[in-house]
Amino acid sequence: MPTAALVVIGEEILSGKFPDENGPFAIRRLREIGCDLRRITIIPDEIGAIAAEVAASAAAFDFVLTSGGVGPTHDDVTFVGVAAAFGLSLAPHPDLLALVRRFGLPENDASRQMATVPAGALLHPVRDDGVPVVQVRNVFVFPGVPKLFQRKLEGIAPLLAGTTVATARLVVRRTEVHVAAALASVAAANPTVAIGSYPRYEGEEHVIVTLDSRDTVALSAAFAELVTALDPVEVVRAPPV
Amino acid sequence: MPTAALVVIGEEILSGKFPDENGPFAIRRLREIGCDLRRITIIPDEIGAIAAEVAASAAAFDFVLTSGGVGPTHDDVTFVGVAAAFGLSLAPHPDLLALVRRFGLPENDASRQMATVPAGALLHPVRDDGVPVVQVRNVFVFPGVPKLFQRKLEGIAPLLAGTTVATARLVVRRTEVHVAAALASVAAANPTVAIGSYPRYEGEEHVIVTLDSRDTVALSAAFAELVTALDPVEVVRAPPV
Repeated sequence: MPTAALVVIGEEILSGKFPDENGPFAIRRLREIGCDLRRITIIPDEIGAIAAEVAASAAAFDFVLTSGGVGPTHDDVTFVGVAAAFGLSLAPHPDLLALVRRFGLPENDASRQMATVPAGALLHPVRDDGVPVVQVRNVFVFPGVPKLFQRKLEGIAPLLAGTTVATARLVVRRTEVHVAAALASVAAANPTVAIGSYPRYEGEEHVIVTLDSRDTVALSAAFAELVTALDPVEVVRAPPV
Repeated sequence: MPTAALVVIGEEILSGKFPDENGPFAIRRLREIGCDLRRITIIPDEIGAIAAEVAASAAAFDFVLTSGGVGPTHDDVTFVGVAAAFGLSLAPHPDLLALVRRFGLPENDASRQMATVPAGALLHPVRDDGVPVVQVRNVFVFPGVPKLFQRKLEGIAPLLAGTTVATARLVVRRTEVHVAAALASVAAANPTVAIGSYPRYEGEEHVIVTLDSRDTVALSAAFAELVTALDPVEVVRAPPV
């Protein structure tokens, strides 16, 4: 199954001017298509921070998605950071320059900046406004504006897809220290099933236990063991596949 | 001014089971108290990932806040990861063991795990449920449950506080390529003012320009220059200090 990291580039997120909508969207959509999102980072629009984060994530995961910093203004430095991550040079891409002309934008430093990408970049056409998604090695560069991020991620989703994860949950009306031993034992006996435990204090204190696996047989077995061991007050089985 | 990074430790966030509420809360609250949040990372409950992220962030920023992974179950490994980040050993802390007894929890492996912290850890009493915030070097370890995270961050907020940032904004009804040159020039002339530019496509296409600074005189000057250069349709001045 493919793994991915998301790098959200945006001073405006860290300083609280805009909420991050792209992280939550990526979490939901990558989950649906079976791409394993292992890391999200939110960093400022700084070349050094972008280069370091993209280089480390590109080496550790199958895919890296970046969000933001691809416009025409002085604070848009994502392509410079991605180039620095891999030691690549930057040059205006003829197809992107043509797009600037087609959109009737003035041909100045600002519009040229938007068309200037790392050497060897691939352009993926996405059926919406005609602006392609730029790929540099295993890094896909997305705009930060949520509406555009979502449409463009949708456009390249087939490239990222894998086997989807089945999930089940149960709710136990006890404190976590009373269920920890049973969880540890079932987790150890079912290594392909990820078991999570989340205490909640709204209403009567309870623990939400979740089971995730790409192996539906193992998931069913672990689920049955936990139902027996924990006497849950509520269960949500994995939907049939 | 102090800088900080937030490390959200939670498989449940990356897999979409629960939304991350602690990142948005930390963004808002740290902004209010004048602590400069420079990085947010969301990573799984894995010792190696926690150790690497905490070590890198502790070296780069004044403070690191972690969220999650401090309970009694098999997937709670934050203290092990923080210890590994600094090469520290782990041992049960007598004050935390006493707390386990005071709360009437069973004395088993699970409750002992919650009381086991890196050597040399400091405990900060927080006036709520009596559970202290654990500090290891410049790292503050918080629970992931949003209600607890918020109360405990509130409790140690005075330790993180600095000079607050003043902010102003204006809205321009033009596309970004037409304002980029003016923004770059005002940004270059006012290095203590951070100028951001955010295109939006809801309704009529427009650009939101923001100015942030701890220097209110410089902020006013840059704001006046941009008002003259850009003919905004809407302005929000920095509130007086």
